Amino acid sequence: MWSILRPEMFSMARLMSDAMTPVRSPTRNASDHLRKMYCSTSTLGLLTGVIASLINLAIENISGVKMLHMVRLVRDKRYWAGFFYFSGFNLALTFVAAVLCVVFAPTAAGPGIPEIKAYLNGVDTPNMFGAPQLIVKIIGSICAVASGLDLGKEGPLVHIGACLANLLSQGGSGRFRLRWKWLRFFNNDRDRRDLITCGASSGVCAAFRSPVGGVLFALEEVATWWRSALLWRTFFSTATVVVVLRGFIEVCRGGRCGLFGAGGLIIFDVGDVTVRYRLGDLLLVTLVGVMGGVLGALYNHVLHMVLRLYNLINDKGRMAKLALALAVCAFTSAGLYVLPFAVPCTPCDPAFGAACPATGRSGNFKQFNCPAGQYNDLATLLHATNVDATRNIFSTGTPGEFRLDSLLIFFAIYCVLGLFTFGIAVPSGLFLPIILMGAAYGRIVALVLQSAVAASIDHGLYAVLGAAALMSGSMRMTVSLCVIFLELTNNLTLLPMTMFVLLIAKTVGDAFNPSIYEIILDLKGLPFLEPKPEPWMKDLTVGELAAAKPRTISLQVVEKVSTVLEVLRNTGHNGFPVVDRPRPGLSELHGLVLRAHLVAVLRKRWFLLEKRRTEEWEARERFSSVELADKNCKMDDLELTPEELEMYIDLHPFTNTTPYTVVETMSVAKAVVLFRSVALRHMLIMPKYQGPEISPLVGILTRQDLRAHNILGAFPHLAKKSKAH
Amino acid sequence: MWSILRPEMFSMARLMSDAMTPVRSPTRNASDHLRKMYCSTSTLGLLTGVIASLINLAIENISGVKMLHMVRLVRDKRYWAGFFYFSGFNLALTFVAAVLCVVFAPTAAGPGIPEIKAYLNGVDTPNMFGAPQLIVKIIGSICAVASGLDLGKEGPLVHIGACLANLLSQGGSGRFRLRWKWLRFFNNDRDRRDLITCGASSGVCAAFRSPVGGVLFALEEVATWWRSALLWRTFFSTATVVVVLRGFIEVCRGGRCGLFGAGGLIIFDVGDVTVRYRLGDLLLVTLVGVMGGVLGALYNHVLHMVLRLYNLINDKGRMAKLALALAVCAFTSAGLYVLPFAVPCTPCDPAFGAACPATGRSGNFKQFNCPAGQYNDLATLLHATNVDATRNIFSTGTPGEFRLDSLLIFFAIYCVLGLFTFGIAVPSGLFLPIILMGAAYGRIVALVLQSAVAASIDHGLYAVLGAAALMSGSMRMTVSLCVIFLELTNNLTLLPMTMFVLLIAKTVGDAFNPSIYEIILDLKGLPFLEPKPEPWMKDLTVGELAAAKPRTISLQVVEKVSTVLEVLRNTGHNGFPVVDRPRPGLSELHGLVLRAHLVAVLRKRWFLLEKRRTEEWEARERFSSVELADKNCKMDDLELTPEELEMYIDLHPFTNTTPYTVVETMSVAKAVVLFRSVALRHMLIMPKYQGPEISPLVGILTRQDLRAHNILGAFPHLAKKSKAH
Repeated sequence: MWSILRPEMFSMARLMSDAMTPVRSPTRNASDHLRKMYCSTSTLGLLTGVIASLINLAIENISGVKMLHMVRLVRDKRYWAGFFYFSGFNLALTFVAAVLCVVFAPTAAGPGIPEIKAYLNGVDTPNMFGAPQLIVKIIGSICAVASGLDLGKEGPLVHIGACLANLLSQGGSGRFRLRWKWLRFFNNDRDRRDLITCGASSGVCAAFRSPVGGVLFALEEVATWWRSALLWRTFFSTATVVVVLRGFIEVCRGGRCGLFGAGGLIIFDVGDVTVRYRLGDLLLVTLVGVMGGVLGALYNHVLHMVLRLYNLINDKGRMAKLALALAVCAFTSAGLYVLPFAVPCTPCDPAFGAACPATGRSGNFKQFNCPAGQYNDLATLLHATNVDATRNIFSTGTPGEFRLDSLLIFFAIYCVLGLFTFGIAVPSGLFLPIILMGAAYGRIVALVLQSAVAASIDHGLYAVLGAAALMSGSMRMTVSLCVIFLELTNNLTLLPMTMFVLLIAKTVGDAFNPSIYEIILDLKGLPFLEPKPEPWMKDLTVGELAAAKPRTISLQVVEKVSTVLEVLRNTGHNGFPVVDRPRPGLSELHGLVLRAHLVAVLRKRWFLLEKRRTEEWEARERFSSVELADKNCKMDDLELTPEELEMYIDLHPFTNTTPYTVVETMSVAKAVVLFRSVALRHMLIMPKYQGPEISPLVGILTRQDLRAHNILGAFPHLAKKSKAH
Repeated sequence: MWSILRPEMFSMARLMSDAMTPVRSPTRNASDHLRKMYCSTSTLGLLTGVIASLINLAIENISGVKMLHMVRLVRDKRYWAGFFYFSGFNLALTFVAAVLCVVFAPTAAGPGIPEIKAYLNGVDTPNMFGAPQLIVKIIGSICAVASGLDLGKEGPLVHIGACLANLLSQGGSGRFRLRWKWLRFFNNDRDRRDLITCGASSGVCAAFRSPVGGVLFALEEVATWWRSALLWRTFFSTATVVVVLRGFIEVCRGGRCGLFGAGGLIIFDVGDVTVRYRLGDLLLVTLVGVMGGVLGALYNHVLHMVLRLYNLINDKGRMAKLALALAVCAFTSAGLYVLPFAVPCTPCDPAFGAACPATGRSGNFKQFNCPAGQYNDLATLLHATNVDATRNIFSTGTPGEFRLDSLLIFFAIYCVLGLFTFGIAVPSGLFLPIILMGAAYGRIVALVLQSAVAASIDHGLYAVLGAAALMSGSMRMTVSLCVIFLELTNNLTLLPMTMFVLLIAKTVGDAFNPSIYEIILDLKGLPFLEPKPEPWMKDLTVGELAAAKPRTISLQVVEKVSTVLEVLRNTGHNGFPVVDRPRPGLSELHGLVLRAHLVAVLRKRWFLLEKRRTEEWEARERFSSVELADKNCKMDDLELTPEELEMYIDLHPFTNTTPYTVVETMSVAKAVVLFRSVALRHMLIMPKYQGPEISPLVGILTRQDLRAHNILGAFPHLAKKSKAH
């Protein structure tokens, strides 16, 4: 007999969630589905593009107003007033961002990329992709970046894309009564996962205006399972984003958007610059890569320590979180305001003409406290939005623009800020802080090398290479970073050098510690399933692993209500093996039943008076597809009478009769490959030998059982081996 | 007891080939492996780049010499002499290419991409990636393209990359005694597969100078299993190719390479052209896409018929193949030579200055038979290498260059040639013929629309869009094509339009028939494993499928020599299930033994006098890792004495004790997902119920058993269902 829940879960998503095809499944028209998929993907791209543009607009205008007034006060020599105005403005903005994060959506703090990565790996963080997170992320990101904190809007944009995708896939937010019926079409795990992947790539694309880079970012960094169809969908969404961004820049050209300058985007188009390099330059570039790798690994290491410290502080409650955020903001504001006074003014090179000194909001050569005809190079870097600062430091053809001491001060302060800003309770991205640090580092190398050996590469390009090296040293992405930089620079000649630097920095970094995202995932305790099994997993069988666990709880195929209730109350498992013994001497591993379905049966009180097998139509009549798709497992309010407890439940209709099984002698390494390849949640272990007195089930393995960390806890002797490897 | 062949095959490749870790595995140093991987990848890129450049150089020079002399004869009004010279030259070149293909390497005919796709899916075509194929492909490709046949060097370049990769992974060609020891390091299935993927992307990159496009082509079209590490490796190899190509163009600039013009590359850099389009243009572009999709599907359909016809001819023997190739060449030559005389001359627009008319080899506005100051527009297209023709037809800012009737003639002749050239026995690519057809189609649409509605898009851009539409309509690639066109045009503004056209054309094409590569794969009868199971596979269990097959042959764990020999002689299976019954009432599915290992045991005559179990060291002592890794299954010369036939073999040490198993009630759909996800070759079926009288094995499934075509043969009633879907 077939169970009413078709055990056939042949799509990745269905396998993964162990979700079943509903009893009365609506006929899904394939072309209709395709059409709606395109609609939702383009809507997603459109919304991400518009929101990214609005965020840029807001940040540029808010921080523009702030900077202009501050500079005016400084020019009037009202230094203290300038300081209090600047700090007050920043503190107010940080306060708004932090309060929003702390009170309304704690999960909106940070970049959100590790959680997206975990979600696509099968780990769902609660309250991560909802409407409150979206709104807090947008406003919080605007306030946090505009307040001058050393963080980017890139990570948050990725999270915003994912939130939008999730809301679209659910057909709007349930909490706010905003639901569009046609969009609910996608309310299944696989389509939602696909859309969230598209959202992540749209976010990267919106941050860097890099459509192919966004797709490759999703492929390389975010997604765990990749399907061919996803390639096209992500690309479709990023292309939509690019069109929207381009439209926005077009509209805003000519100052129609207030202080919105170059669109708040890192635009570094050097497509017309011909880059020629000699073999000697390759050595210098190697140096940049090696040092970038070391610095990146060091950054990861120190950031790890800082985050652990911050976790302790943040655990103390809301006020502690708020205080920490404000303290970091106060420190940042003081640094940004005071430091430019420490460096001398630089006279303008007449070659730059009217561009120097700049008194407005954006542009190189900020005059700040300097007399006419001179500029303060440190103010140029510090008194700008982070994006502007990147643009300034990347600028080509300006070898003498920045003094070495200014760059050293800038590098030092941004190293400190980059380490101590990330963990505070505001939406924050890691991309831009690392780019800024790396760019400063690259430019410092160029300045030092210029005096030592005659390097023929432009200082701006060294800044780009430095940024790439540090990014790769810390984040360990390669192809997506390379393509992002390719699309930023729009110059294929730079490609070999960028690749070379990225490769070296990644290799050097990998020698020290894992990537920053892996560190964060580990800190957050998310049970991420690694792509490759550890070498020592070959030396352990799944049978041994199951034996080390508490006794496996299995249900009979027709089970007493009291037993089911007890099992549900005493364990937190999401799936239970079902065994059967149809007649003496014959045993059967009947399958796997989900907690959600057991709860559904208990709630409906679909009990039998005697131990018997039901017919298929009986279950069909009682349970609708919607009820069975519901994953709500709460049963606190469930009250059963003593008579009911003595009754029986027939699990036949609810059991997935063909779960994936492995033999007990299989190695853990091989089981891990299967578990991850077919995206399982539960894996049943069968005995090697079959006989009348042998149970048909040895045990059950879940994601937690197969995590390296947990296995090493139970088998400490393997830890030594793992060190030896 | 562990078998000496570690059953732990946790890498994708090992799983796939069922290859075992050798008995005495050499300690593989990870960093050493990485270093060698980089060496081989960059060597691969370097060689592909150099060979691509040399092929370009040869083609440009040979066909340049041919064209120049032919044009001279025509200018002297010696038309017949010109015709015979032209045709004779072409026939000679085709003859060389065809003889090479027919005599030395029949597998070098055609593009090779379907076979690469099949190889990466787990289907190894014999004699596909060796040194003879490489050499024949290089020389044959040069001759075939230079002879003016309507085929491209793009597909062959992909195959050349794959051949190079295979030879590198084997450490050179065994046949020619060229072997480098350090490279043999990669002589395992996974590394070879990775390198071949890199080779394929290098080939695409060398063909279109498109590094990211090459990577995405490998990802979207070629590879079946994708690993994160591959992304970086393919990109590394394509970047090397780009560097080499750029160096070559740099060297050849200034005419130092004979008639080598613009590098034989389709260079269509319109990065400085600002494209503006209105909403009305979008409608026209939609039209281009829809018609491109229809034309592409039609092309696939007719090509399918032509290829079936050609298969009949080619099966008649070598002479038939040769005759077919020469006939096509004669027809092509006649067409190319005669047709330009059919159109009137066009006076040169003074705006083009000295560029018109062109009397040299390359360039627009070929003078041919026209008086001074005029040019023959059809000769411009026909009397050039295919790459030159593409460049000419793509050229921007030349709305009046081509006459409508010339374009129509060009389109018609290239449709005919494109259909009848592909199947002949020379190395041939599909990319360029389709691009040429599509470009002509796009330009025709532009010309027609210009008179009907005022379209604001350049004719050259319409040609690009037309080419993209037809490519997508026939090949159904999207992202890689889009990126290739993006990298060709170097203009992000074109991106949305290109995407739009590709999307529409693919959707329209999919409504009619599968992609051209799928059609060719099907024609070649390669057992390609599709990514998704068919919907009707849900309605069949693996038990039912196994029952429809002939009785499963299984071996006892200690088996008589005569039985093993008989099984090997009577079946062609590559793997046999091994069952055991350690004591009465207890049964065990012991595992799976490979044919190659059985043959190895027979060859070594490792027989036992009585039925007993051997110790691990006994097998270790007799069989080296190299012997067991050998996949040679030939046993024609094996002679066993009657005494030996009565002896026993202990299969314990050779059995993979943990093959992947499924329960007989599992649906075929779910089994297919498992089979493909973990890349299996054999899948064992276990019984649902376990008892003393039940066999522990229901059957064994292989790739062939799970192919939709074969299942439908055994279960015809499912075919009706499949039609209904």
